[in-house]
Amino acid sequence: MASVDVPVALLGYGTVGAAVNRLLTENADDIERATGHRLRVVRALVRDTEKERDFQPDHGVLTTDFAAVRDDPEVAVVAEVMGGIEPARSYVLDLLGAGKPVVTANKQLIAQRGAELFPAASAAGVQLRFEASVCAAIPVIKVLREALVVSNVHRVLGIVNGTTNYILTRMESGHTYEDALAEAQRLGFAEADPTDDVSGADAAAKMAILATIAFGSRVTLADVAYEGIESIVPGHIRAAQEMGMVVRLIGEATLVDGAVDVRVHPALVDRHHPLAAVEGAFNAVMLQGDAIREITLEGPGAGGVETASAVIADMVSIVGTKGTGFLQDDAAWRTLAQLPPGELESPFYLRIEVDDRAGVLAHVAERLAAHGVSVARLVQHEMEGGAALHIVTHEAPAGAVEAALADIAALPETHGTPTKLTVISDRGT
Amino acid sequence: MASVDVPVALLGYGTVGAAVNRLLTENADDIERATGHRLRVVRALVRDTEKERDFQPDHGVLTTDFAAVRDDPEVAVVAEVMGGIEPARSYVLDLLGAGKPVVTANKQLIAQRGAELFPAASAAGVQLRFEASVCAAIPVIKVLREALVVSNVHRVLGIVNGTTNYILTRMESGHTYEDALAEAQRLGFAEADPTDDVSGADAAAKMAILATIAFGSRVTLADVAYEGIESIVPGHIRAAQEMGMVVRLIGEATLVDGAVDVRVHPALVDRHHPLAAVEGAFNAVMLQGDAIREITLEGPGAGGVETASAVIADMVSIVGTKGTGFLQDDAAWRTLAQLPPGELESPFYLRIEVDDRAGVLAHVAERLAAHGVSVARLVQHEMEGGAALHIVTHEAPAGAVEAALADIAALPETHGTPTKLTVISDRGT
Repeated sequence: MASVDVPVALLGYGTVGAAVNRLLTENADDIERATGHRLRVVRALVRDTEKERDFQPDHGVLTTDFAAVRDDPEVAVVAEVMGGIEPARSYVLDLLGAGKPVVTANKQLIAQRGAELFPAASAAGVQLRFEASVCAAIPVIKVLREALVVSNVHRVLGIVNGTTNYILTRMESGHTYEDALAEAQRLGFAEADPTDDVSGADAAAKMAILATIAFGSRVTLADVAYEGIESIVPGHIRAAQEMGMVVRLIGEATLVDGAVDVRVHPALVDRHHPLAAVEGAFNAVMLQGDAIREITLEGPGAGGVETASAVIADMVSIVGTKGTGFLQDDAAWRTLAQLPPGELESPFYLRIEVDDRAGVLAHVAERLAAHGVSVARLVQHEMEGGAALHIVTHEAPAGAVEAALADIAALPETHGTPTKLTVISDRGT
Repeated sequence: MASVDVPVALLGYGTVGAAVNRLLTENADDIERATGHRLRVVRALVRDTEKERDFQPDHGVLTTDFAAVRDDPEVAVVAEVMGGIEPARSYVLDLLGAGKPVVTANKQLIAQRGAELFPAASAAGVQLRFEASVCAAIPVIKVLREALVVSNVHRVLGIVNGTTNYILTRMESGHTYEDALAEAQRLGFAEADPTDDVSGADAAAKMAILATIAFGSRVTLADVAYEGIESIVPGHIRAAQEMGMVVRLIGEATLVDGAVDVRVHPALVDRHHPLAAVEGAFNAVMLQGDAIREITLEGPGAGGVETASAVIADMVSIVGTKGTGFLQDDAAWRTLAQLPPGELESPFYLRIEVDDRAGVLAHVAERLAAHGVSVARLVQHEMEGGAALHIVTHEAPAGAVEAALADIAALPETHGTPTKLTVISDRGT
């Protein structure tokens, strides 16, 4: 197959942009062998063309003029690697309108503005790909859209934030939350202001994107209920270990009777579950569906080169499917309702501090039973001034468990506020 | 995008063929939304058109005449799901020659006859896809070829046989090899004659395919050194557990200084390694490369519906990349040498039974040192009539370890034949 020259452009030339140019240059032969196409960066939009760059592009490639990218007729694909909502959003809309396919690594752009961007791409008959926006080089979007096309995926479980996973696995080795966070910051896994990661907001944006693709209904960041790991204490980790489980920040997207529930929260994961084995700053996504039972993808969820690798895979896929109609339509083709809060069923872990005297356990058990919540396992620990009950329930609606816990919190023998964490133990098998 | 009608054909209509037809029929709308194409089975080659079938095809679809499939001008893609080398090989060659793209689920066909089939596909300018030939619905071929196009994958580690993984994980719960095998047979995870699985031959065929794609050089079944799990005894499993490891049948394909080494053997896997978490009849493949560090894919590696799901993903990908040159060339584009046997470096586990008296350990240690093998960990157990030494070495060439073990076996204080197993602990990070 004769080589086809494919000029491409970048919006942004920071760590990811420079890595895209370097990988395209160094692997041009590999790409040509696999695809018949030779991709080369001919334009890169920057604010300052004089700044020192990693992997300095050829003379004349850097430009401060967006129109020079949009209006260059030879540019076949544009990768947006500048980040932020604006001007990225306007640029992407402009490019799609001009008939240029776009690849983006921008998770916030897709999670917050997908409802505007994907229809614009469909209307223009060009592709908008975004593999790098979720879990960097882990090809979860490609697998969902292309490999699992007949799988009817009904559940996506993910560890999609490396910072929090690093902190939680360090806490398993006895570190406090504060020490583990400080260490993550020293190693560059966490930002100076770690709020976006530890609050669950970053994971929520990724889960919104995954849920949209998996279920074919638009889920935006605003639709995702999220909770971070700031309140996790070593006691949770120890209690989990005693029950053969680990604590992980889990993103959970579920399709139940035609309604969607997407959330991010710390959860206890059974140690035989594939997500329990995900350690350090790694990410993993488990897809459960009819024809595949479950498929789990694990790998580094961040990094400049890893992100660039995913951007290039998307560029290559766009070029390789040009003119065939493949994956040109918006993945969101229907509008599903949100599952009412509290209806999602799951087993739960409850930690309740109580007076250590006869009858207390019976009172707690009664309140659970009154709300239809049954107990699968119970461990009681002596502690200063009372006892701690660690309970794992059978599957129950979150709302019923919350109502039972409110009743329990109101008992005179209960100390403080009980803790409730989702338990992940089910498999797609 | 207007719907495009895509007639397809099947060679074979057994469990997988019927599942392909059912999934294409039931998910026709999903496929059309994702791809713009509507696939329907118009021909299926069988030996007996009168036989009762799962998901009975429409009248006139079943045929006993191969030429009716090959010469039907409307058939756009053919899926070979009949199995076996002949007549599958002749049919596939004929179809490619007639300009029909082919999808196959046939691992032996690809592993043994790929050198003939892929050049035939390239010459005809049509695609030959084979996702379902390795690990059923786990999309490892797509990920390797399309998502990791710039990753320079240099190592593939896999648990690619579910039967043996089921047996080994049952042995962890205290079952003997014989009991675990009998249970696997009762549950349908193992054949009445389990030789192909337990000998490592099935895994070797899959590793040949994966190595060919990963390294771009043809590896056939004959190039893969394999060893099965028949000699694994509960003592190996216990010793592994004591050292924080598990026993798994591991396929290992490595690119070292431009030479290729592909093998299948029982190995000890560190319990923090992602492959250690793969339990029961599941499969997993870890890909290590420059731009991605490591990506692991895990899921069910067998099953009719799972296999059908992968066959359909390939059909859809062929239709979606028609006319673009994407993935039309043979993945094997170079000819790499095989690494000489014994040169592959790894840590090893050694189990040596010896007399329990002073000086024996020194003798063993001397023989290891004489061959440049250094000891990372050592555990000594009392046993009837002597002691068992459990040694984990630092990384060393297999040949040096074998030479040291031959010297040790010749010592008068050594009982029987020492055991040697590869240790998997390294990560791509």
